Amino acid sequence: MADQAFVTLATNDSYARGAMVLGKSLRNTNTSKKLVALIGPHVSEPCRSVLRMIYDEVKVVDLMDSGDTAHLAMMKRPDLGVTFTKLHCWTLTHYSKCVFMDADTLVLSNIDELFDREELSAAPDPGWPDCFNSGVFVFRPSVETYGKLLQFCTEHGSFDGGDQGVLNGFFCDWATADISKHLPFIYNLSSIAIYTYLPAFKQYGGNAKVVHFLGQTKPWSYTFDPKAKQVSGSGQEAAAHPTFLLDWWTLYASSVVPLLQEQYGDQPF
Amino acid sequence: MADQAFVTLATNDSYARGAMVLGKSLRNTNTSKKLVALIGPHVSEPCRSVLRMIYDEVKVVDLMDSGDTAHLAMMKRPDLGVTFTKLHCWTLTHYSKCVFMDADTLVLSNIDELFDREELSAAPDPGWPDCFNSGVFVFRPSVETYGKLLQFCTEHGSFDGGDQGVLNGFFCDWATADISKHLPFIYNLSSIAIYTYLPAFKQYGGNAKVVHFLGQTKPWSYTFDPKAKQVSGSGQEAAAHPTFLLDWWTLYASSVVPLLQEQYGDQPF
Ligand SMILES: O=c1ccn([C@@H]2O[C@H](COP(=O)(O)OP(=O)(O)O)[C@@H](O)[C@H]2O)c(=O)[nH]1
Ligand SMILES: O=c1ccn([C@@H]2O[C@H](COP(=O)(O)OP(=O)(O)O)[C@@H](O)[C@H]2O)c(=O)[nH]1
Ligand SMILES: [Mn+2]
Ligand SMILES: [Mn+2]
Repeated sequence: MADQAFVTLATNDSYARGAMVLGKSLRNTNTSKKLVALIGPHVSEPCRSVLRMIYDEVKVVDLMDSGDTAHLAMMKRPDLGVTFTKLHCWTLTHYSKCVFMDADTLVLSNIDELFDREELSAAPDPGWPDCFNSGVFVFRPSVETYGKLLQFCTEHGSFDGGDQGVLNGFFCDWATADISKHLPFIYNLSSIAIYTYLPAFKQYGGNAKVVHFLGQTKPWSYTFDPKAKQVSGSGQEAAAHPTFLLDWWTLYASSVVPLLQEQYGDQPF
Repeated sequence: MADQAFVTLATNDSYARGAMVLGKSLRNTNTSKKLVALIGPHVSEPCRSVLRMIYDEVKVVDLMDSGDTAHLAMMKRPDLGVTFTKLHCWTLTHYSKCVFMDADTLVLSNIDELFDREELSAAPDPGWPDCFNSGVFVFRPSVETYGKLLQFCTEHGSFDGGDQGVLNGFFCDWATADISKHLPFIYNLSSIAIYTYLPAFKQYGGNAKVVHFLGQTKPWSYTFDPKAKQVSGSGQEAAAHPTFLLDWWTLYASSVVPLLQEQYGDQPF
């Protein structure tokens, strides 16, 4: 459907690499939906070119320069910069329904069935499971909702300083109102859940459809040896979700690095 | 209502102390329900006496000697001993509806409204939030359900080796079927959630109704200085949920210790 899209966000070249892998993983699982990347003004030209090869639409969002409501609201809450940028996905009104995905997510099998769900559908957050995790959510672009979100954001701020706090404050009946808006956890399997309750991961993790590398250390924080097919990095964490991390790097090495090489030529990237 | 009860389980004197504090916390919050403690044969006579002062009914469950279905099933799966004991709560058929609570839970305000819910209602487990945590759940005693549970247990075992794995396997549509069976997380606030997502705890934790000290270290694993009103114990963990731990110990020191002293006299306990 041409009016439905997966949407992600990258404000710098690191997250842009995440977006490239995510986009490739969506293509590889044969999505029939459009792919949209929102990018910040600091994403480099070569990275933009690669994103344009993978995504149907690459849109620069620069709230600081826009002089619109968002700008005004932001002046009052400069701390919520990146958060405001994510909310911008509600302005994509040439789509009737979208699924937002963090740039640190990886799709393992086709998830087009998410478009059967309504706004706001999301998976529970491990840690405080009456909150949804805002790394994967179904939404309907709408100027009206966007305005209300900005207003809420300006008036109430974010209890966690990020978009997840704002969105949970705004869509505050998620935990209690409608079970169909609870996406199964396998659509947003946080790598953190693997260690917290290993037997459950062993029981249900095989059905994982989306892995979310949430937290400080992102896949691109590690280094990868393509010959040995091994990931190494910041100590113990490297071993914690080894298979998913390897999945990410394998896709990056095989499908993204060649595109980056084309753009950067001899230069390091 | 005389046919509704809170039910807990203690197979030894340590968990019995937890059951005493839990029972007192239910009394202090003026529950109108009956209180039932299931105990194992190894709970000492003085502890049984104290439990009888707090609980309306103290029932010894000794599956190993019973020679019934449970016994037979258990022979095949000796590893699931304590799990079988917890399932025994379904045999309390002189009650029409019950709320099971782990002996390591503490009630902070009246929760009788839980009896408005249907079997099987429970709160999500932080860690793998499509599983419910089996530390607090609403159920309907029934010989039929009990039999089916034992059968399920014998055939499929428990994916985590405990009752939570069995119950989630048996009530497997909890995550997707009926939002009213999702108890708000504040009815089973696992102390682990406090560190995992601190901003959410600060935002919503003030409404906590039940604290659950899940994991290796239980409140009774610490030591308490009643004069300084301070809890000390296994290093950093003592500081992690200091207020709830202090709540537990304050109640234990003021309302349970005097009862134990009556029973034990000069002897240490
Ligand atoms: O500097 C940043 C931080 C975040 N993001 C976007 O915001 C999402 C949420 O941030 P992150 O994934 O780091 O948060 P976490 O999932 O670890 O809580 C990212 O996936 C990106 O899409 C970004 O573009 N630039
Ligand atoms: O040796 C034991 C272990 C467990 N239990 C009962 O089973 C419940 C579940 O065990 P626990 O609370 O230790 O598990 P956790 O909540 O830490 O996963 C306890 O609260 C007790 O009611 C018990 O009586 N004796
Ligand atoms: Mn993320
Ligand atoms: Mn427990």
